Amino acid sequence: MAQTTTIPKGTRDFNPTESTRRNYIFDTVKRIFTLYGYAPIETPAMENLTTLLGKYGDEGDKLLFKIQNSGADVSKPCEKGLRYDLTVPFARFVVQHQNEVLFPFKRYQLQPVWRADRPQKGRYREFYQCDVDVIGSDSLLNELELLQIVDDVFKSLGIKVCIKINNRKVLSGIADTIGCPDKLTDITVAIDKLDKIGLEEVESELEARGLSKEAILKLRPVLTFSGDTHQKLAFIKEYLSESECGMVGLSELVSLFGLILQVGITSQVVFDLSLARGLSYYTGAIFEVKALDFEMGSICGGGRYDNLTGVFGLPGMSGVGISFGADRIYDVLMGLNKFPSTMQDAPKVMFVNLGDSESITALSCMQALRQAGVSVALYPDRTKMKKQFDYADKRGISYVAIVGEEEIKQEIISLKDMNNGTQQPMTLEEMIKYLEKP
Amino acid sequence: MAQTTTIPKGTRDFNPTESTRRNYIFDTVKRIFTLYGYAPIETPAMENLTTLLGKYGDEGDKLLFKIQNSGADVSKPCEKGLRYDLTVPFARFVVQHQNEVLFPFKRYQLQPVWRADRPQKGRYREFYQCDVDVIGSDSLLNELELLQIVDDVFKSLGIKVCIKINNRKVLSGIADTIGCPDKLTDITVAIDKLDKIGLEEVESELEARGLSKEAILKLRPVLTFSGDTHQKLAFIKEYLSESECGMVGLSELVSLFGLILQVGITSQVVFDLSLARGLSYYTGAIFEVKALDFEMGSICGGGRYDNLTGVFGLPGMSGVGISFGADRIYDVLMGLNKFPSTMQDAPKVMFVNLGDSESITALSCMQALRQAGVSVALYPDRTKMKKQFDYADKRGISYVAIVGEEEIKQEIISLKDMNNGTQQPMTLEEMIKYLEKP
Repeated sequence: MAQTTTIPKGTRDFNPTESTRRNYIFDTVKRIFTLYGYAPIETPAMENLTTLLGKYGDEGDKLLFKIQNSGADVSKPCEKGLRYDLTVPFARFVVQHQNEVLFPFKRYQLQPVWRADRPQKGRYREFYQCDVDVIGSDSLLNELELLQIVDDVFKSLGIKVCIKINNRKVLSGIADTIGCPDKLTDITVAIDKLDKIGLEEVESELEARGLSKEAILKLRPVLTFSGDTHQKLAFIKEYLSESECGMVGLSELVSLFGLILQVGITSQVVFDLSLARGLSYYTGAIFEVKALDFEMGSICGGGRYDNLTGVFGLPGMSGVGISFGADRIYDVLMGLNKFPSTMQDAPKVMFVNLGDSESITALSCMQALRQAGVSVALYPDRTKMKKQFDYADKRGISYVAIVGEEEIKQEIISLKDMNNGTQQPMTLEEMIKYLEKP
Repeated sequence: MAQTTTIPKGTRDFNPTESTRRNYIFDTVKRIFTLYGYAPIETPAMENLTTLLGKYGDEGDKLLFKIQNSGADVSKPCEKGLRYDLTVPFARFVVQHQNEVLFPFKRYQLQPVWRADRPQKGRYREFYQCDVDVIGSDSLLNELELLQIVDDVFKSLGIKVCIKINNRKVLSGIADTIGCPDKLTDITVAIDKLDKIGLEEVESELEARGLSKEAILKLRPVLTFSGDTHQKLAFIKEYLSESECGMVGLSELVSLFGLILQVGITSQVVFDLSLARGLSYYTGAIFEVKALDFEMGSICGGGRYDNLTGVFGLPGMSGVGISFGADRIYDVLMGLNKFPSTMQDAPKVMFVNLGDSESITALSCMQALRQAGVSVALYPDRTKMKKQFDYADKRGISYVAIVGEEEIKQEIISLKDMNNGTQQPMTLEEMIKYLEKP
């Protein structure tokens, strides 16, 4: 009996059109990462569970895909799991190869990650992350560089974005200022939800998390302040004046915004006090990027971490990184109709199959075309012309070339433009010249 | 306590140099697949076990990595496994998407696969396969096209290869001819070992597998025949004259070698009767590629299959495909020192960091360089010049650019060529012109 053909829930197949579009995104980010001097690394899909467990909170631990041991160890507890993100494997990599790695270490990594999340629209159990990090330098020039990369990537993709910036030390300063330094996580988790649930809900959540009425009242100006980046920086300068940590964070923000002004970033860049991001390992700058013309969660985010490698035995390594969400960027490009129209998964030209001897002539023309960089295929079966033209049409092939008896006699090729239906005879040399044009 | 940092046995990290080399291989095959009109697809790392089990023999089933169910189903038997190759997921894909797929369907797929094999030199538990297949056409032009792709890929990589060709129908014909049609698998498994263990061992293995002395004697001419492709075809024509199936196989071979001659393939192509390949799903042509100047197992292989999708409910789909072994190709390129010397994982230019205001000037020069396609980085920390130059040297950066007080005043950049140690002043425009050259 034939088996059913399905794939595990939350996973996806990508057909040629989708894969070609995805590759366009991957190639764009890789090209720009490379222009900025970042180099690729790869880590295995499987990591030891000791590497993964305890790094993503209890919730994260539950979402790890575990691999059954093989052979005689099948009944023992699992020892391996699929990577959950690229950050922890990167930290593990840096520590494991610390004697070979040259610091500051600038790396990018484009690989899939797996999470046993409940699948839902836009949330998958296998998805790609595109991470770019520099580790071993605490210069703010690294933050600036990553923002330049963000700017270049989205400019190149044709997506207008807003880059939101905050600083973890400023958030700590706020917790200090309202007298709840131990409630930093509760405060940031709540602030993070401000956009979604509004002030009232956030405040009752904070109360539920044990903050005093007084502390919540003290926090309110932060939650309600509105103004541009300049005004916010001025507000925070006054609000956090008593917090040493807060002032360090503010100074970092002021320096970074100064650099941004001097270098000139074309994307909108704003200071967003409500930006906290879930992950707890950020210690300085925090970034998040949203598309301006399309409704979508953040499409890129990251920040500065001061002790990512400490848990693996290499303390004091400051780094900063960002991650591009390829799936969401894909959806934004689709929504805005911004994938280049020239991008296609079909060959540029298809030669029709008119029989054995005609095919031999076609094949030799095709070799010359490929040498000139033109993608080309021969319809493999000798079948009705209509069927062959239908195939070319359905596959979105731009040109169909005909080499029949008459063409061979005259040493020409008849080239049909599938977009406008015109057909013209030309020599192979003329055809190469004609099609080489981008 | 710090955790140990190791990765599961049989898996690997790839550092920037290794990743860059691997990408060179992937990019080369992708470029050539595209020139021939093949389109990419991707399938998930996890497949349902029902899709995978029973497709690779009992031995293969044991080598599947199984994923523990998540959530409440943790104690139930595993339902998912990591893909073992790209062929079965491809077959599953074709059947699942048969109404969207346009036949003949020409696809390539570059993704990792996982096998719980005992790790040893050159055998890994995670490795990449680069597969290219056409399904839905039984024309021998497809076989020819794949051989052209093999030829182009290895020419492009600078590896001289021998392409070995055989035909499963010829092997069946041999089994018919010696009167053991039911022993085809035993015969092919034994023939496959001829190179490794020699005639005597093969014959005693055949005896152990239940072939009669007479059958073995009848087989001997096949095992011992030596001659060029032409002579072998002539020999087989006579030897198999009584086997209908064998004569069909021979005719396919003769046609294919005819096409090869007419189109002109620069690699060595031979008819190799001892070529059987382990996998049992081949039904027509069988291919294997070996490097000529470097000792290594086959670096590419494949063949024609007539019923790959039948098990998933879509019978009668003939296809042919080949798979490039990226890891072995990597080792051959290393062994022959054939990776391009221009390939590097470092930026082409590093600007030294001489302080904040100098860096701002450097950053604006760098933007212009990147626009011209030159990869460039600024050393992020203001530290001793020696340390910065050492970094550039160790990372293999070709040029170091200096923008100091004096340079800013004169509106120039001092560019040091790290290969010969010379340093010259130039304007930004001159620098762009100078470095744009490939």
